[in-house]
Amino acid sequence: MAETPIDFRTEPSRYRHWKLAVEDGVAYLTMDVNEDAGLKPGYKLKLNSYDLGVDIELADAVQRLRFEHPEVGAVVIRSLRDRIFCSGANINMLGLSTHHHKVNFCKFTNETRLGIEDASLHSDQTYICSINGIAAGGGYELALACEQIILADDGSSAVSLPELPLLAVLPGTGGLTRLVDKRLVRRDHADFFCTTAEGMRGKRAKDWRLVDRLVAPSKLADETKKVAQDVSAKSKRPKDAKGIALTPIERTIDGDTIRYAHLTVEIDRERRAARFRFAGPTAAPPADAAGVHAEGVAFWPLALAREFDDAMMHLRLNETEIGTWVLHSAGDLDLVAAYDALLDREKDHWLVREIVLFWKRTLKRLDVSSRSLIALVEPGSCFAGTLLEIVLAADRAYMLDGVFEGSNLPAATVRLTAMNFGPYPMGNGLTRLATRFLAEPSKVDELKGEIGAALDAQAAEEAGLVTFAPDDIDWEDEVRLAVEERAGFSPDGLIGLEANLRFAGPETMETKIFGRLSAWQNWIFQRPNATGEEGALKLYGTGKQSKYDRKRA
Amino acid sequence: MAETPIDFRTEPSRYRHWKLAVEDGVAYLTMDVNEDAGLKPGYKLKLNSYDLGVDIELADAVQRLRFEHPEVGAVVIRSLRDRIFCSGANINMLGLSTHHHKVNFCKFTNETRLGIEDASLHSDQTYICSINGIAAGGGYELALACEQIILADDGSSAVSLPELPLLAVLPGTGGLTRLVDKRLVRRDHADFFCTTAEGMRGKRAKDWRLVDRLVAPSKLADETKKVAQDVSAKSKRPKDAKGIALTPIERTIDGDTIRYAHLTVEIDRERRAARFRFAGPTAAPPADAAGVHAEGVAFWPLALAREFDDAMMHLRLNETEIGTWVLHSAGDLDLVAAYDALLDREKDHWLVREIVLFWKRTLKRLDVSSRSLIALVEPGSCFAGTLLEIVLAADRAYMLDGVFEGSNLPAATVRLTAMNFGPYPMGNGLTRLATRFLAEPSKVDELKGEIGAALDAQAAEEAGLVTFAPDDIDWEDEVRLAVEERAGFSPDGLIGLEANLRFAGPETMETKIFGRLSAWQNWIFQRPNATGEEGALKLYGTGKQSKYDRKRA
Repeated sequence: MAETPIDFRTEPSRYRHWKLAVEDGVAYLTMDVNEDAGLKPGYKLKLNSYDLGVDIELADAVQRLRFEHPEVGAVVIRSLRDRIFCSGANINMLGLSTHHHKVNFCKFTNETRLGIEDASLHSDQTYICSINGIAAGGGYELALACEQIILADDGSSAVSLPELPLLAVLPGTGGLTRLVDKRLVRRDHADFFCTTAEGMRGKRAKDWRLVDRLVAPSKLADETKKVAQDVSAKSKRPKDAKGIALTPIERTIDGDTIRYAHLTVEIDRERRAARFRFAGPTAAPPADAAGVHAEGVAFWPLALAREFDDAMMHLRLNETEIGTWVLHSAGDLDLVAAYDALLDREKDHWLVREIVLFWKRTLKRLDVSSRSLIALVEPGSCFAGTLLEIVLAADRAYMLDGVFEGSNLPAATVRLTAMNFGPYPMGNGLTRLATRFLAEPSKVDELKGEIGAALDAQAAEEAGLVTFAPDDIDWEDEVRLAVEERAGFSPDGLIGLEANLRFAGPETMETKIFGRLSAWQNWIFQRPNATGEEGALKLYGTGKQSKYDRKRA
Repeated sequence: MAETPIDFRTEPSRYRHWKLAVEDGVAYLTMDVNEDAGLKPGYKLKLNSYDLGVDIELADAVQRLRFEHPEVGAVVIRSLRDRIFCSGANINMLGLSTHHHKVNFCKFTNETRLGIEDASLHSDQTYICSINGIAAGGGYELALACEQIILADDGSSAVSLPELPLLAVLPGTGGLTRLVDKRLVRRDHADFFCTTAEGMRGKRAKDWRLVDRLVAPSKLADETKKVAQDVSAKSKRPKDAKGIALTPIERTIDGDTIRYAHLTVEIDRERRAARFRFAGPTAAPPADAAGVHAEGVAFWPLALAREFDDAMMHLRLNETEIGTWVLHSAGDLDLVAAYDALLDREKDHWLVREIVLFWKRTLKRLDVSSRSLIALVEPGSCFAGTLLEIVLAADRAYMLDGVFEGSNLPAATVRLTAMNFGPYPMGNGLTRLATRFLAEPSKVDELKGEIGAALDAQAAEEAGLVTFAPDDIDWEDEVRLAVEERAGFSPDGLIGLEANLRFAGPETMETKIFGRLSAWQNWIFQRPNATGEEGALKLYGTGKQSKYDRKRA
């Protein structure tokens, strides 16, 4: 494990870089980065530049607003600094970081930006960006994740993506994709914009679709407030509902075991594997949405999603050599299915919707985790519906056919629920089942007929839900081989392989960001022109000129 | 320039690795790689493994079959070697190659595979692969580009993608994408297949959709012939038509000037730029398709496409430091438009169709060339229709508003033709105009009303067809700055930037291959785990074990 593990758990009272205020159905998320509070030593977060720590707080605020503030229909992102909105990811931090930290940082910020868009599009909590000065690089990328961008029209406030001309890297957080695929900026305009370090301001920024609205600087605050209040007034979020508090996630790390209430992760360093053990619920679900609300963060699906999400981020950043995640579960299938039935029945309730959307995002986080995923379906497991998505997200799934000798646990079964047929689309916009059966689309409809049925190993293999169904005699060798073999392969090769095989079918802005943009960025981060001793990222701010290898690949 | 430039021009009498025979409407393209005839010294092309030279011949044969053999409705790809179909790209060649050569090699082989699919889908010349032994890595990827894969069912013939387990790299020629997006192989099956070095054979290969048909080895030749003859019989290609000969492309290289009949390329090493000067036709087109056929390779659009294609490949491989291509034209707009009118009018004639499809592929080759593209529309230019696509493919286009002082050439105009509205889709499946105007789809329809109109600089800028329209006073500085600025940027950053900005809108198998798979492959090719001194690609065949950095990015 990393010496000082990065902790993703935080809350507003501990924020060092953001201020969160709510007024009249509008939340104001105000950036005021403490330059001395970087996550690691060695750099200062000047000019509202950010590191992972700044983004951890942003992600927390975005998540919290959804659950704690049903009355908020619009969120304004703005800056407290004079004439500076945000100058993007901190360059010195990037220059000092390892390759895997840079890539992990970009992935998490991407997930946070996509989470912002998910809130706007699916929770009716719409993000508006109010830019009072320079929005450079990641600063403008943050703006691009908002549904509206308001720019001060003062002759100096500007948006820019100066990464290429200044640093020889790409805007790493979806900027290029959002320019041409979200804001539909013409490619020649995008080309000029991205090669112009000082960016664009005023009329050209608006004409070229880079911002939505220009406002005189003296009116920026009032106009932003008015726009946000109008947007909030049109939101269908329940103004009179009461939010639930996202109290701290309880976690203990004991050697190589990480324990949460409903999830334990055991690290096997020799095999470079982490075993996730998901625990099913121990009691029946409440009767209705009111009961869900009364349980709050203790409601099993919400509690487990929070733990699962935290565990993944912990492992991604702090356990980079643990390349395989082995996915187990234990519990009562009937109870898991009963929770799914409740989620399906009460799906129009704001809190239930948020819980389901959170599971959607958490499962997507699993999909884009650059770890090999092996699901093991054993006697005593409870992979039904929502939990079965974890099996479907795996690169490979093994299900024991029959029982273990000497065990009195009955043979495992898996179970489909309504939750497998819509609420949890992958980044490509399709369910995991639809992605899985691109070759036989009718199979998805056939499987709807199997909702609720207990599918044993042979039935599950026949249905295409698991990859292999070895019996007791072969199980141990086959599973051990799969895990050990994975540990022997090149991590880079596996990352590329998995990124290419996991997302068949249609592409979306999201899959383009993770599949294409990130791959190019990873490549460029490795190139001497960016990160070599004479590369632009290393020399930025030193006054020295970088020397490029001119060969075009 | 590279010391011994790689020449892409060849013909069957000079093939060293393939045999081409035509019989009863079926072409047999038989691989028989001469292991001592590698393109560069230092490796032997054992076991029907290939290097760029082998693929140059394949690309030539695929192209030639379309133009020279209208009677051929099916093409069989097979091997002359006993129990070996093809063992893929030569590993020693990859280990010895520079990064940019590897990437260029992969791109060209990708274009050739896509050309095979284009022939099957759009020329009704359908490719069938007959596998008599081992089809490993690039060998299986070649098979995947065919519409049908027939595998000998003999207990040893197998298809495999062993790149990850053996070499720590990805199958670099579309294999992963075609598995899940063309053949719709289930992702968990694909995962198992791609991590199993020995691959799959027999029933499992067929059940998992890796091949289409199993045939006893003794019947493989006959059965393949029968399948191919059936496919050919159903083809709508004109059995009685006579092909046209693709005679050698004439080219002279004189210092930094490359001269063809209709194209001159001037290399400006100081600015790391190549100026393409396309020459319009000097006479009116023939009246009809019969006239086109009579002109054969001399027909201006065909002659120019061949030259343009050859020039791009020459520059890509032999002039890797020339990072910007500046695109000029000179000629008579009326004549260019008249040729386009002929291509449109006779589009159902097989030869005209082939010429238009060839322009489509050539323009796609421009789209995926990792060079900055700057189009300059000046007085005397002839950017109409087909040639206007070159302007639309550019990252940026400048058009002179007015005339040059002291010149008697009238102000430039550009012209739309029917050819801009359909026949030349990009890899994303959309025309360049539709991709350009994703934000205003109605604009494409409006522009149809402008077909044939002479659009001057202001009209062209207003219509969104060019980026900037400076006048005589600003032209020189603005254009010089654009070209010089480009030369100052990091080539890697530009490659990634351009790859992300050029292909907005829908994704296809093709854009996934170039945009996603290639980016990951480029990244992995840079990683020490593959190409470092202890990397798998370097150590392959030495018996030494590679040492991996285990950190997951």
